[in-house]
Parts: sequence; C-alpha cells; structure tokens
Amino acid sequence: MFKKILIANRGEIALRIIRTCKEMGIKTVAVYSTADRDSLHVRFADEAVCIGPAVSKQSYLNIPNIISAAEITNADAIHPGYGFLSENAEFSRICAEYGIKFIGATAEQINYMGDKATAKATMKDSGVPVIPGSEGLLESVEEGKKIAKEIGYPVIVKATAGGGGRGMRIIKDESEFEKAWDDAKMESGAAFGNDGLYLEKFVEEPRHIEIQVVGDQYGKVCHLSERDCSIQRRHQKLVEETPSPIVSQELREKMGEAAIKGAAAIGYEGAGTIEFLVDKHGKFYFMEMNTRIQVEHPITEEVTDFDLIKEQIKVAAGVPISGKNYFPKLYAMECRINAEDPGNNFRPSPGKITNLHLPGGHGVRVDSHVYAGYTIPPNYDSMIAKLIVTGQSREEVITRMKRALQEFVIEGVKTTIPFHIKLMEDEQFKSGHFTTKFLESFDFSDL
Amino acid sequence: MFKKILIANRGEIALRIIRTCKEMGIKTVAVYSTADRDSLHVRFADEAVCIGPAVSKQSYLNIPNIISAAEITNADAIHPGYGFLSENAEFSRICAEYGIKFIGATAEQINYMGDKATAKATMKDSGVPVIPGSEGLLESVEEGKKIAKEIGYPVIVKATAGGGGRGMRIIKDESEFEKAWDDAKMESGAAFGNDGLYLEKFVEEPRHIEIQVVGDQYGKVCHLSERDCSIQRRHQKLVEETPSPIVSQELREKMGEAAIKGAAAIGYEGAGTIEFLVDKHGKFYFMEMNTRIQVEHPITEEVTDFDLIKEQIKVAAGVPISGKNYFPKLYAMECRINAEDPGNNFRPSPGKITNLHLPGGHGVRVDSHVYAGYTIPPNYDSMIAKLIVTGQSREEVITRMKRALQEFVIEGVKTTIPFHIKLMEDEQFKSGHFTTKFLESFDFSDL
Repeated sequence: MFKKILIANRGEIALRIIRTCKEMGIKTVAVYSTADRDSLHVRFADEAVCIGPAVSKQSYLNIPNIISAAEITNADAIHPGYGFLSENAEFSRICAEYGIKFIGATAEQINYMGDKATAKATMKDSGVPVIPGSEGLLESVEEGKKIAKEIGYPVIVKATAGGGGRGMRIIKDESEFEKAWDDAKMESGAAFGNDGLYLEKFVEEPRHIEIQVVGDQYGKVCHLSERDCSIQRRHQKLVEETPSPIVSQELREKMGEAAIKGAAAIGYEGAGTIEFLVDKHGKFYFMEMNTRIQVEHPITEEVTDFDLIKEQIKVAAGVPISGKNYFPKLYAMECRINAEDPGNNFRPSPGKITNLHLPGGHGVRVDSHVYAGYTIPPNYDSMIAKLIVTGQSREEVITRMKRALQEFVIEGVKTTIPFHIKLMEDEQFKSGHFTTKFLESFDFSDL
Repeated sequence: MFKKILIANRGEIALRIIRTCKEMGIKTVAVYSTADRDSLHVRFADEAVCIGPAVSKQSYLNIPNIISAAEITNADAIHPGYGFLSENAEFSRICAEYGIKFIGATAEQINYMGDKATAKATMKDSGVPVIPGSEGLLESVEEGKKIAKEIGYPVIVKATAGGGGRGMRIIKDESEFEKAWDDAKMESGAAFGNDGLYLEKFVEEPRHIEIQVVGDQYGKVCHLSERDCSIQRRHQKLVEETPSPIVSQELREKMGEAAIKGAAAIGYEGAGTIEFLVDKHGKFYFMEMNTRIQVEHPITEEVTDFDLIKEQIKVAAGVPISGKNYFPKLYAMECRINAEDPGNNFRPSPGKITNLHLPGGHGVRVDSHVYAGYTIPPNYDSMIAKLIVTGQSREEVITRMKRALQEFVIEGVKTTIPFHIKLMEDEQFKSGHFTTKFLESFDFSDL
C-alpha cells in the first residue's frame, strides 16, 4: 500500500481524499495556491506545499510544480481529484515517468475517452449502444431519408458548424423530412457560412443516467449501478440521485453490463463513469466516459456502503476487486451548494462566510471545506458544499433534504440553497417525471 | 397524525426532534430558559416560548409553565426527550389530563419501571432473567451458604446500608464464605451502624448491553437489537457501539426475546430500552428499563435505517408496528463530546466556542446544537455533540472515528475529544475485550 499520497486538488474533494487516507493510515500532502493558505485541506493534511499563485494555470494546473512537490515530500502516489489535472493524459504520463503512481486512468485510457469520436467508435465496437446516425456529413436529402428510415424516426438534423440550436431541426416522420432539411441547410448556411448537415436519432425525453464502474489491474470491472443527473442548468449538474426513478432493475442490469463492456474494452483501471442518455422508451445511448472520480460519487457510497476513494486507492495499489456488482439498498440524493445567486442568473458570490451552521442528524452527510470566517476566493469553482441525504424512499429523501436545506445557515454570501428548497417543493420534480430540459422552464425569478 | 408537537427539552435532543418533525410535516414549539435564548432549537422550531430562568427547576422541570406553553400554542403532543421530565410519571399523567399526548410511557408504566424492586419483580415474573440472590436480608451465615449453593459461586455479599464498596465481599467458593461474611458484617456495622447483609450472584466481567424495543398501542412489541455501553466512567456512558463485539447472533435473539417479554408484560407503548448486564459466560441479567429515548439511540438508527424519533411519534399517534425485529446491517459507534476537561477529572468547561469545525464525509453523523460563537451555559448537562460513525466493520468504524475526532475543531472550551482519540488508539479497546470497569484503570493523566 502507498505510504504517502499527494493530493493535486483543493476544496471539498481534497478534504474528502485526506479523510480516506487517514482512515487507511496513509500520510497526505496537500498542495495549495496562495489564495488557499487558510483552507482546511492545508490544515488537515500531514504536510502542505505551496505550488504557486491564485491563478490555476500557475498552481493547480502547474505540472512541474506539482511533480516537484511530490518529489520533495517523497509521495509515492498522486490523487488528482476531479477537474484540474484529473483527465490530463500528459500529467498521467509524467507521473508514470517519475515513478509516482497516478491514482486514475493511464494516459492511453484518458486519450481514448478524451477524444469523442474515438470514444464513440470504441464503445460501438465493444457493443455499447451509441446514438445511431450518419457517419459524418450527409451528401444528399435522399441519403438522409435512407438513414432516417434505418434508424427510425424521430431524428434530428444538425449543422456541422452549428451551436445554440441554430441549423437544427427535429423530424418526426418522413413527410416532414424535405422541408426540415431545406430549412436547416438555409439557416446554417446563413448563420455559419457552412451548410453541411449530419443526422442522428432524436432522443425523446432524455434523462442523464450514468453508471459507476471500478476496474482493477487484472482486467476485472464491476459496476455500482446508476446515478440520475438529469437536473442540470446549462449542462451543469445541480442535483443527483440514486436509484433513478425511471430505471427498472432490468434496465439497471442492462446498462451496468454495457458499462462494464465499454470499460473492459479499454482495459480500464480505477473508478470511472459512463454517461448515457436514456429516452422515454428506456433505450440508452453512450454519451461519454469520465476517467476520474465524479463530484456526485457520494450518493453511490451512501446506497452501497462503499468508500469509492478507498476503492480507487486500493486498485491503484494493485489490490484486485471481487468483480461483484453493487445495487442500491437505499435512496440518496445530492444537492450542490454553490456560492452563487440563483435569482441573478447564478452569478458567483465569493466572499467571507460570516456565519455557518451545517445540517446534521439521521441520513445527512455534508462534504465541505468551508467554515465560519472562511473567505471563498473568486478564482475557482463556486461549489462550497455537497449536501447528501439518504433514506428509505425517494419521498423520505426529498422531505429530509428540504429539512436539511432549511437548517443550513450560510451568511455573508449568496448560495443556491433557495433554489434547492424550491426544487424539493416542485410537484414535477417530486413526481420523478422530468427530462434534462426540466430547468429550462424553471422559474428562478423569485429566488 | 399530530399537527404540532411541543418539545420539552433543550440542546441536541430538542434539535433532533425538530428535525424529524420537519420531515414529517409536523409543526414544532420549542421551550427555553433565559439561558438558552440563542440556542438553535429556538431558532429552528416554528414557535418558541420562554418558560423561565436558567435554573432547570424553574424552566425545563417546571410542569405548569410547560403545560401553559402547550396550551397557548395549541400543541397536541409533547415530546420530553431524555432527562428532565422524560421519566416523570406525574408529568405524563398531567399531559393526559390536559388532553395532550405525552410521547412516551404512561404514568403507570413509568412508575412500574421507576421503582427498582417492582421493576425487578415484574421482569422476573415475566421470565426475564434477573440477578439471582437473597430476597432481602440474610438471617444467618447458613442461609447465605444455602442460597450461594443454589445460585452458584461466585457470589457477592453487600451491606444493605452500603455504598462505595464498603461492606461488600466477593466470594469465589464455599471455603471463603464464613470469613467473608464476618468481614463484611464487621465492616458494615462499623461504617454504617447497620450490619444487615444481602447476597447476589456476582456478575463476572460484566458488560452493559441494552436492547432497544418499540411497542405500539395494540400490544405489539419489537426489538432493534443491542447497544454495548460498557465504556463508562462513574456510571456515565461515554462511548456506545452496535453490534456488541461480545454478542453472538444467538445471544442477540435471546436477549431480544427477553426484552420483548419484559416490555410486553407491562403493555409497554413507545420506544424503551432494557438494560442488561452480560457476564463472561454470556448469561444476561436485567438491570433496569428506561422508558424514554436514549442518548445513544442514533447508533441503532444507523445500522437499521430506522428513525427512532419518527417511530416514537408514530406509535404515540396510534400507528401500529409490524412486529418485525431488526438486526444490525452495519457497525456504528457514538462518542459523546462533552465540554469537560478529561485531564482534570472531567471538570465541566462551559464558555464560548470561538471556533468550530464539524467533521463530515462518508459514514459520519453529527448531532449537535452548538455553533461558532455559541456560549455553553454552565447550568445544564455538558454534552455538546454526539459524533456517530458507521462502517462495514468495527475496525473500519474505529479508524473512521479517530479520523473524525482528529478533524473535529472546537476552540474556546475544553472537550473530551482527546480522551476519545486516546481510546480509539487503545489496544484493549480495539480488541473488543473489556468490561464496565475498563475506564477505572485508564490513564487520563496525559490528556
């Protein structure tokens, strides 16, 4: 087992990793920018090294400084957390070169999954469903119709140069095809000076469902079931839950098997997440694979009793896994508490926390690096706490989450707590029937 | 279901009850003494009524004021928590008289269990093992020997007027009897002017093991397994755990059945705890029944996924229980964090908390009513937090507890945290082999 792990990150995830290392009897090294001098991850690590100024590029993304810190302190492994260098193939490679174990994927695996086209092709080859469509640009309206017929309506045509919904048309059946094609071509030509179109199956009422996997160094991969991350604002997840209210045990097993196939195809080592879109018919399609720990990993821990950071460290040290899959025994939900003003377009609200009371009691977990008197620097991600609630049913979890949110006192900065409270009271959210577009029509004006 | 519950208590248990009421959609009324104006239970309840000055007798023990507060606020039930009026038969009776549901035992049940002799006789009659011995005073040395022979050595003779170990002798076999008898008689005569002696089976290597029971209004009682509370200092519990390292599944089921029998014998309604002494042979003996929620109830919640306060409220409202028993699925341990100086005879250390950081993360629960800036009044119990840790094994729980204790920052007052850290590192404690006398030989001098 490792003797000392350097944590190349900050905030709650750095603290999270320190916690598990302490429980495993492994020494820890924190690195920090000058803006993070007073951070708890610095206080709670056994050693701490300043690696540069506030700007991430010169500190938390500064590979030479981090490697130097590891060498000076004699760390035998580096845990990158999430974000920053966690999916940086170059960093993974350099760690290997210096004989420091990178607790994460190999450079090769990161590259495989980092390039979307390669990832999609790899998954397709290993039998994981991907969104069917044209391979590249369509030559003609006839080719489009032919492919649409093969994959089945509804389909969507998209401008290759597109963005923001322009040059994009949903087509419900063949009778609509020609008009939609002409409109999309004209719109994209006018908007981007490029009228190239491609076509995909249109995913109806999509949910974002991801599968947690863990692979060891001996080719074994297991899954720990799903997380439903459909509550997103501009592709930023705000709330995650497990099990998903729309995933049956049958679908769970099918998606789990697919995720294992995909990860096994690249000999995946460590904890990873395969993200899928699931449509209203229960069909699922590969989106991407994250080759690192996810922000929302605690909800899986709460319902399976696993410590995922411990699993990461163990497999990185060469411990084999049993290969058994894990299914949720309870319900869990996470709300990301950000220092942002939800009534003002989620504008970041850094500054000093003047007063703080964390919620507690039965079924409540808080992962946070802040304290009363702490000043949130403006330089980084605005997440200041993860509130994770567990219970025997989704209904119990929602009422408990609301109670915990109401009890959470953070004074001095604006936070997303009022948004979360409103969400917990929302009838549609409570029903479990919503899509990834849910927040597009949510009323934030009274927050 | 109740519409509004008045909580006749303070501190963490008041907050604990408010939490569950919020989750059940029940309004809450806090009562407080003038010393508790700034307490969180006052802040988080829907309404709050000041019931008197700091002195408990005039506030938290002031029955007329509490009843008035319930009448003014239209509360339809009162939860007494633990301590204060929770086992006060008169209070239970008056609540009933005023048509306010007392969430706890009836006056009759409290009286039954409050009188130790009655409780013991009731238990014995219903088939619960009690410590065998003489019925009252012994007439002669021959009678003593006869009873000792019947119940089996070792036995203990005790002065009826005794205390502090004086006039008390442990007798291993009959050859020692006469000398021990004479010594005890002489010593008690000299010390108390009363040389009356009685005799009991001597419990070898005793552990304090208690069984949690819940009874409904229809005569059904279930148990939720045991809690091991052997870590005590002067009969004050400091650490509790479940499952007990010395209780086998067979013993658990036997003790559970005995506890159910005892509770059913008095038609027990609500949550209660039957405390037993267990000797080194796995024999168990009834000590007493607590007709209220216990401080250490959260460890049972963590390993069974039950909310015991919710169960109390439900059965008080007439909801029937299933009658199923519950067995631990995980391991949990609680450390009582008191504002006391463990290196100075646990002297209370009230005052202002200048800095506070609560531990968090996987498997960590904190039940506490304090915050940075809070002043601990000198008038009440010195417990300021319960740190509850859950894991897959006792070993994991101990390492996690140590990590959480090391992360717990409370500045401004002395606390028992250093004692708990030392305990978690103690080899004998870690082995699981210790008795209720364990702390008598513990070295507190370096704390």
